[in-house]
Amino acid sequence: MSTEPSISAADAAAFTLARVRIVLVGTQHPGNMGSAARAMKTMGLSRLVLVAPETAPNAESFALAAGADDVLASAVTCSTLAEAIADCTQVYGCTARSRRIALEELMPRVAADRVRAEAEAGGEIAVVFGRERTGLNNDELQLCHAAVHIPANPGYSSLNLAAAVQVLSYELRLAALGESAAAPAAPAAVPPDASARREPPASHAQLEGLFGQLGDTLDAIDFHKGRAPEAAMRKLRRLFLRAGLDEREVRLLRGVLSDAQRMASIATRGD
Amino acid sequence: MSTEPSISAADAAAFTLARVRIVLVGTQHPGNMGSAARAMKTMGLSRLVLVAPETAPNAESFALAAGADDVLASAVTCSTLAEAIADCTQVYGCTARSRRIALEELMPRVAADRVRAEAEAGGEIAVVFGRERTGLNNDELQLCHAAVHIPANPGYSSLNLAAAVQVLSYELRLAALGESAAAPAAPAAVPPDASARREPPASHAQLEGLFGQLGDTLDAIDFHKGRAPEAAMRKLRRLFLRAGLDEREVRLLRGVLSDAQRMASIATRGD
Repeated sequence: MSTEPSISAADAAAFTLARVRIVLVGTQHPGNMGSAARAMKTMGLSRLVLVAPETAPNAESFALAAGADDVLASAVTCSTLAEAIADCTQVYGCTARSRRIALEELMPRVAADRVRAEAEAGGEIAVVFGRERTGLNNDELQLCHAAVHIPANPGYSSLNLAAAVQVLSYELRLAALGESAAAPAAPAAVPPDASARREPPASHAQLEGLFGQLGDTLDAIDFHKGRAPEAAMRKLRRLFLRAGLDEREVRLLRGVLSDAQRMASIATRGD
Repeated sequence: MSTEPSISAADAAAFTLARVRIVLVGTQHPGNMGSAARAMKTMGLSRLVLVAPETAPNAESFALAAGADDVLASAVTCSTLAEAIADCTQVYGCTARSRRIALEELMPRVAADRVRAEAEAGGEIAVVFGRERTGLNNDELQLCHAAVHIPANPGYSSLNLAAAVQVLSYELRLAALGESAAAPAAPAAVPPDASARREPPASHAQLEGLFGQLGDTLDAIDFHKGRAPEAAMRKLRRLFLRAGLDEREVRLLRGVLSDAQRMASIATRGD
């Protein structure tokens, strides 16, 4: 086993890690932003995004960042998760075991392999961590392509935020170095069609555009018939997110929806 | 992929983890003993040994242990590393990259697999962490069977003590659960959504039914506009096949198509 990565492995790792942002949502304790920055930097990650932290990074944050104060100082702050991931092609939400929503749930190692594959395909990736006590809410999880779950002790699963960032960052680094567990099986761990894909993956904003038009189309063709639209939209979002659409596929699906909308508009014109 | 270990996997993990002690040598900051106890317990480890800490565990230690105060309270204190590991059959020393002594140096994952094998063979294992600033000295490293090195960012490798304990404990837990690198790669080869899915996967015939109706719908809404339909259908088939649809999702999509067909039928009735 190689413990000293070759120059090219290190270069490849840097390439992958540069395409990954760590997003902390609604962080409550300023110190945790510093500790998370430190955990990131030990593993070669440098892009930190803060979504609506309860307190902006302060002296305590910088004290705990230690030598990773550069990561913390260059952190970007956004007001919503949607804004933080607008240009991302893959979004992973870290969760405690949760069945609140039926999101694909991955081990950190499997997620890290997918991140590497996505980075190599030219994607932009976000790994998202929720609030210390309450994690990510359902609306935030809806924005994620998959959930990542650290297989902690069921009797005591309270990793603190920095510890969770450390574990994920460690797995991302190993995958980037080509040292991950699933590496030999990588072809099976990445979306089945990744190797065949030529087109750039769709961004979060492009997918949201598709979902918005899909919602409008369901209304136009009177799909809901008085039922609440949320459940159907949630299921449709999930299956399309799971498919890992590329830009061309999003254009194709939107073209189909446009024609369905046009027909519905003609059909209801005389009503 | 299995994210919920079976009872027997959990039992096997508990068996392995019960044979592992975490040894902290010469810890300087009392808080770190508490944070290390917490990191251990999140991964199902409970045996903590303190070798000549600069300060005995105090209120700060217990505050940082949070719900792992039981691990800290039951910690054994020894005056030398030799005493702490007297009955161990394998001893791993965690080090920053160091060539001071010619000790075999392992990745955490590889070490964790060896720990599991040793536990199954009836051994007693110690994983040893040195002082915050200076690590283990040469005499202490001489007592170790192998060194373990976390492959950190060469430009900033300062994991704090609790972060290093967290990473090693995580790898020990994965190995104990049979999820480690050297374990069969099967978990990653299972279809991605298996863990979240409750519904039976759609059969080939169900998928063909969907694709047939999709083709009819594209005709009905005049999607092709004179172009050959094959290319679009091929792309749509591919993306839906990639999503790994279940039966319920096929029903949902067919319901949407039915409503689009109905609208198209109304729209073209007067033609």
